[in-house]
Amino acid sequence: MTLLLKNVRPMGGPVTDILITEGRIADIGPAQAAAETVVDGGNALVMPGLVDAHVHLDKTLWGMTWRGHQAGPTLDDKISTERRLRTEWDLNPERQAEQHIALSAAMGTTSLRSHVDIDTVHGLKGLEGLLAARARYADVMDIEIVAFPQSGLMIRPGTAELLDEALANGADLVGGLDPYGLDRDPKGHLDTIFALADKHTKPIDIHLHEGDELGAVTTEMIVERTLALGMEGKVAISHAFCLGMQDRRRVAGLTEKLARADIAIITSMPPSRPVPVADELRSAGVRVAGASDNVRDTWAPYGNADMLQRAMHIGQRYNWRMDADIEVALDICTYGGAAVLGLREYGLSNGCVADLVLVEAETVAEAVVAAPVRKQVFKRGKLVAANGKALA
Amino acid sequence: MTLLLKNVRPMGGPVTDILITEGRIADIGPAQAAAETVVDGGNALVMPGLVDAHVHLDKTLWGMTWRGHQAGPTLDDKISTERRLRTEWDLNPERQAEQHIALSAAMGTTSLRSHVDIDTVHGLKGLEGLLAARARYADVMDIEIVAFPQSGLMIRPGTAELLDEALANGADLVGGLDPYGLDRDPKGHLDTIFALADKHTKPIDIHLHEGDELGAVTTEMIVERTLALGMEGKVAISHAFCLGMQDRRRVAGLTEKLARADIAIITSMPPSRPVPVADELRSAGVRVAGASDNVRDTWAPYGNADMLQRAMHIGQRYNWRMDADIEVALDICTYGGAAVLGLREYGLSNGCVADLVLVEAETVAEAVVAAPVRKQVFKRGKLVAANGKALA
Repeated sequence: MTLLLKNVRPMGGPVTDILITEGRIADIGPAQAAAETVVDGGNALVMPGLVDAHVHLDKTLWGMTWRGHQAGPTLDDKISTERRLRTEWDLNPERQAEQHIALSAAMGTTSLRSHVDIDTVHGLKGLEGLLAARARYADVMDIEIVAFPQSGLMIRPGTAELLDEALANGADLVGGLDPYGLDRDPKGHLDTIFALADKHTKPIDIHLHEGDELGAVTTEMIVERTLALGMEGKVAISHAFCLGMQDRRRVAGLTEKLARADIAIITSMPPSRPVPVADELRSAGVRVAGASDNVRDTWAPYGNADMLQRAMHIGQRYNWRMDADIEVALDICTYGGAAVLGLREYGLSNGCVADLVLVEAETVAEAVVAAPVRKQVFKRGKLVAANGKALA
Repeated sequence: MTLLLKNVRPMGGPVTDILITEGRIADIGPAQAAAETVVDGGNALVMPGLVDAHVHLDKTLWGMTWRGHQAGPTLDDKISTERRLRTEWDLNPERQAEQHIALSAAMGTTSLRSHVDIDTVHGLKGLEGLLAARARYADVMDIEIVAFPQSGLMIRPGTAELLDEALANGADLVGGLDPYGLDRDPKGHLDTIFALADKHTKPIDIHLHEGDELGAVTTEMIVERTLALGMEGKVAISHAFCLGMQDRRRVAGLTEKLARADIAIITSMPPSRPVPVADELRSAGVRVAGASDNVRDTWAPYGNADMLQRAMHIGQRYNWRMDADIEVALDICTYGGAAVLGLREYGLSNGCVADLVLVEAETVAEAVVAAPVRKQVFKRGKLVAANGKALA
């Protein structure tokens, strides 16, 4: 199976052709040979598939009629409201995951990591839904699944056993959530999830909303356990608002520790919160990935799964204006995400998996600030979306 | 001239019809009579025309090939880089203003306030260009023009005389810019622009980037002069980053003073800066308007003149999730802007000017979070944009 993608501009460079064989990039350069299928890119800019490192496929209301937000301002409000509405609104995880995957594909995302709620009310239903949706969309999207104790772990007995079961039944990572701020027992929480990770030889991705010094100490606890278990490179912290704290000297110390333990940071860059400073982290050698997080769900009505627009938000948040800086914003949503998800053979080189996005833009910077409709999206060399719509 | 707009949902309410006579709303309700023209709104949500209270029509590079950002991080860098590139890149203010107006119309903006650079290098050329563009697009957009000393006033002798000339020749407001931070003589700067406003009986709109206590004192200076000259209701402060300062008690005092002097606040809500807290200001009775500010110019490569997306940014910045809160975000970009620009007969009632925007959305909140393509835009009852494209 060969596909010749003619007249495209890799990262906005000169016009060339890309030959794809068996789902991989076989050659970039003026086409030398015939191919079974030829697609004309019309001089579009081509970039590697966008990577969304933190979503909740099971939560989105995408495709449903409008539902006004009901939850109060605290984390507790959001958790209990969601657990209730999941039943009241008949939120089928499989159906909603498919809506999200199709939306993400339409936006040019070709790989993502999704958390899935595991709790004593809904058990493993969410995981089962996501596994079914993942199987159906295997040709469209690479998906990692995190077994996520959204309703708490130590405060909700039985959850640890469910996580254990989830990890034995298809979940790829262990999740965690605010070990002290929500779960009230940081030592118990972290010991439990690191033990599960160790038992199943699976990585960890922990939600850490804890702010300022609270999150800073929890970050140290995570670093200590990562080093003790030799889990360098296998742990990620999502949100990490504490890294946006005022005391930059304190943050510099944490950054050095994160780098030493090769712990990645995943951020959706919410404009209402302090956020990690991506370029400081990257300079210190910490992997940083961008993410959509909530997409129109009971947590937040915003979100559209557009990782190009997310790159724009990232650039604006850091006041990046030069082309070279805006390119970093896109890097966080492509190569940065790939490094966190551990995608092998990712990018625009011979041998890389042919996950490609075409947009009408002169430069990468223009693609980020304009976030134009995705003209074509290829997953392993197969067209999966065109003109902003998923084909599947 | 009568137009019957059938099957629309005012602010997402029940389906009804809007009868428009001579550019004004004559009736909202099931159509009783025939009209010369009938348009089917297809059950779209209809809202009043969006208001963009702070743009720079003369600066945008919209419609030109991509130009990488060149200016350094300071205000001085941006000012001197722009003054240079204006010549090097042959930035024709009339041509660029027309590009911006067409873009804004396509996004559903029907009224805007634009600053125009007045300096000793380019003189009144910018004003002349904007006046020509405004005349050509008179049926599409209501435009207020602020004579703006972008390169400084006290530090650039001859500028005050040019502002005086601009106000005598079509500029509607006097502008100002960081009286101490940039212009180094706050007393001289403010005395000069208030004297010009007094002489020409025209309002004031001052750019105030000055942060924290610096901007706080300048705000007090502006309040004092407003009260002394009886200019209550005639002064606006754009940006006002100082109102985002940590010391909320200090801000509360300033807010009370702003309310007393009826000074309006205009904000584009930049995600990299502290920003005024809109609901606190509104609760105190201060008029607050939303704005695009820079749209792909030598100051910033971002921006698309989309005031629905701006409402989304405003909602996200303040962490507004409830429908009622998200409606406030839109209010800032509609009625809030209208109150700052002093638009009379604005809104969706009988007798109001028929500036209308139709979008496919169930509710106002959905219109804000999704910022869908503008299906139809009417200016004084005349169709000026459809399916996201300006007709002119």
